[in-house]
Amino acid sequence: MQNKEIRFASRPTGMPRPDNFKTVDADMPQPNDGEVLVRTLYISVDPYLRGRMREGRSYVAPFEVGQVIESGAVGEVVESRSTKFQAGEIVTGMFGWRLYNVVKDAGLMKVPPGVPITTALGVLGMPGLTAYFGLLDIGQPKEGETVVVSGAAGAVGMTVCQIARIKGCRTVGIAGSDDKNQHLTQELGVDAAINYKNPGMRQALAEACPQGVDVYFDNVGGQVSDAVLPLLKHGARIVICGQISLYNLDKPDVGPRPQPYLLVNSALMKGFIITGYAARFSEGVTQLAQWLAAGKLKYAESVVEGFENTPQAFIGLFTGDNLGKQIVKVAER
Amino acid sequence: MQNKEIRFASRPTGMPRPDNFKTVDADMPQPNDGEVLVRTLYISVDPYLRGRMREGRSYVAPFEVGQVIESGAVGEVVESRSTKFQAGEIVTGMFGWRLYNVVKDAGLMKVPPGVPITTALGVLGMPGLTAYFGLLDIGQPKEGETVVVSGAAGAVGMTVCQIARIKGCRTVGIAGSDDKNQHLTQELGVDAAINYKNPGMRQALAEACPQGVDVYFDNVGGQVSDAVLPLLKHGARIVICGQISLYNLDKPDVGPRPQPYLLVNSALMKGFIITGYAARFSEGVTQLAQWLAAGKLKYAESVVEGFENTPQAFIGLFTGDNLGKQIVKVAER
Repeated sequence: MQNKEIRFASRPTGMPRPDNFKTVDADMPQPNDGEVLVRTLYISVDPYLRGRMREGRSYVAPFEVGQVIESGAVGEVVESRSTKFQAGEIVTGMFGWRLYNVVKDAGLMKVPPGVPITTALGVLGMPGLTAYFGLLDIGQPKEGETVVVSGAAGAVGMTVCQIARIKGCRTVGIAGSDDKNQHLTQELGVDAAINYKNPGMRQALAEACPQGVDVYFDNVGGQVSDAVLPLLKHGARIVICGQISLYNLDKPDVGPRPQPYLLVNSALMKGFIITGYAARFSEGVTQLAQWLAAGKLKYAESVVEGFENTPQAFIGLFTGDNLGKQIVKVAER
Repeated sequence: MQNKEIRFASRPTGMPRPDNFKTVDADMPQPNDGEVLVRTLYISVDPYLRGRMREGRSYVAPFEVGQVIESGAVGEVVESRSTKFQAGEIVTGMFGWRLYNVVKDAGLMKVPPGVPITTALGVLGMPGLTAYFGLLDIGQPKEGETVVVSGAAGAVGMTVCQIARIKGCRTVGIAGSDDKNQHLTQELGVDAAINYKNPGMRQALAEACPQGVDVYFDNVGGQVSDAVLPLLKHGARIVICGQISLYNLDKPDVGPRPQPYLLVNSALMKGFIITGYAARFSEGVTQLAQWLAAGKLKYAESVVEGFENTPQAFIGLFTGDNLGKQIVKVAER
């Protein structure tokens, strides 16, 4: 068994490129007491990782050049020196981008049986929880209200759209291709879907929200958000979940200031990070799993095959390659 | 007795000018049942009125050209056909810019004895309540936190600064002259005051907030706010009370987008309008009056003499002429 790892080779300027990453052979690590050796099966690539590639402050500490990138992953326990896990069990946690990792048992959770193991990285993992708490806790959608979701065809956005539907809201998704939008309306029951690349998108969005916008769940930022602001209703709530359109910019982007819109509408705008809801994760997973089992919640995955292609899967997030959760399949179970 | 009124003569483009207003003779109105004839003593001019001079939507309906401007005022009951008020009583409400107004009794409140009657337009009126609910309900300052206030030498800002001090916060005011800032630090006990017109203001602000910013009470917007955003701490709250730097612009101003700052700090930004707190006004007035009586809360007034100078007093708000509450003295009590 030869281990491999993907290191952070250089800080990207603008869009990340393959040469910002370097795949190298690595030693096979040995678990100590309380640790587990895990064979990686699936790696999750997520837009927020771009923030960690920047030198400045973001959600979490920046990656150091030379360090192994880490992100959410699912794997199989190969060897356990923990009383909590046994060889053969499927686990999830934050792993280094390696074929094999040694992980402390406190940083691992078992993937429950009965659902595809990749859901631990998507609808029943961080993206699902992000959708659940961001929409319900900050957005507080009420029946009959209009919820607009940017990045609607991503892992978080899709789940937000469907929870908004479950809550009885008119739901309008914004995504970057007609194929994605067709998926939103035909598969997920979204009331209207707008392609932000169309020149008439502002008009289309206004027509899709005849009553205005009560909740805007924002994964994207930038000009997409500029189009939503004039449609806000009194008491609107804007959930700042991500700003993927800005992540590859090297200096703060300028745009119309949102403060006047918040002022005249007594509206709220709030950022959040999902780890702030850690104490309530089990509530969220339980509800999401229940909706999933009841067929009320669907998910989509885009799978890139092969460990070495992990950087490319990550880069593709910024060109909108993915429908739903972007994962990398590293090995067969 | 000759009545006079000031009409809205034309919509301003950019900074309001005297010729946007027209002072004319008017008939002396007669009260019907449930109405009161009031002689105006003091008129309040407030930045938010600029929003009503615009055609689009703002807090409240726009003024129509030809209409008499209206704002907060204090007056004396001359003739009452209401069971609630008697001639000679001092009352406050929203009046037309007239020497004499007929007002429905439901729109009037008595000014309590024992305090200067102009406080009904300032520290015990809308500006005081705006400071009280905006800071405490949205800002939620905690002891030891850092509160930054823009427009700190205005009627709202001064009160915010002092309530923040009462709550045990490090309080940093931003205003437009060294005289104003001297008043803030020497008279009101503000910990540091920054002149936003100084080229080194960003540096000075950062130095005045060595722990970062927990609460930003924003009356001004624009580049002043741009300087605050990079200093936000995790969980910061931004109270959008006013955006006076933007009110005279004819199209949305552009600037660095604040969403990324909200995202990485899980920060909140919320607009409000004081009428949304109407059900709690008595709570606010009671507390403000108590602080005032105890000497914990001071106020300042800038008084322009003469009814005809009301437009000029209003225009002066946008050049920072006022320290504290800008009022117009129309008549002796």
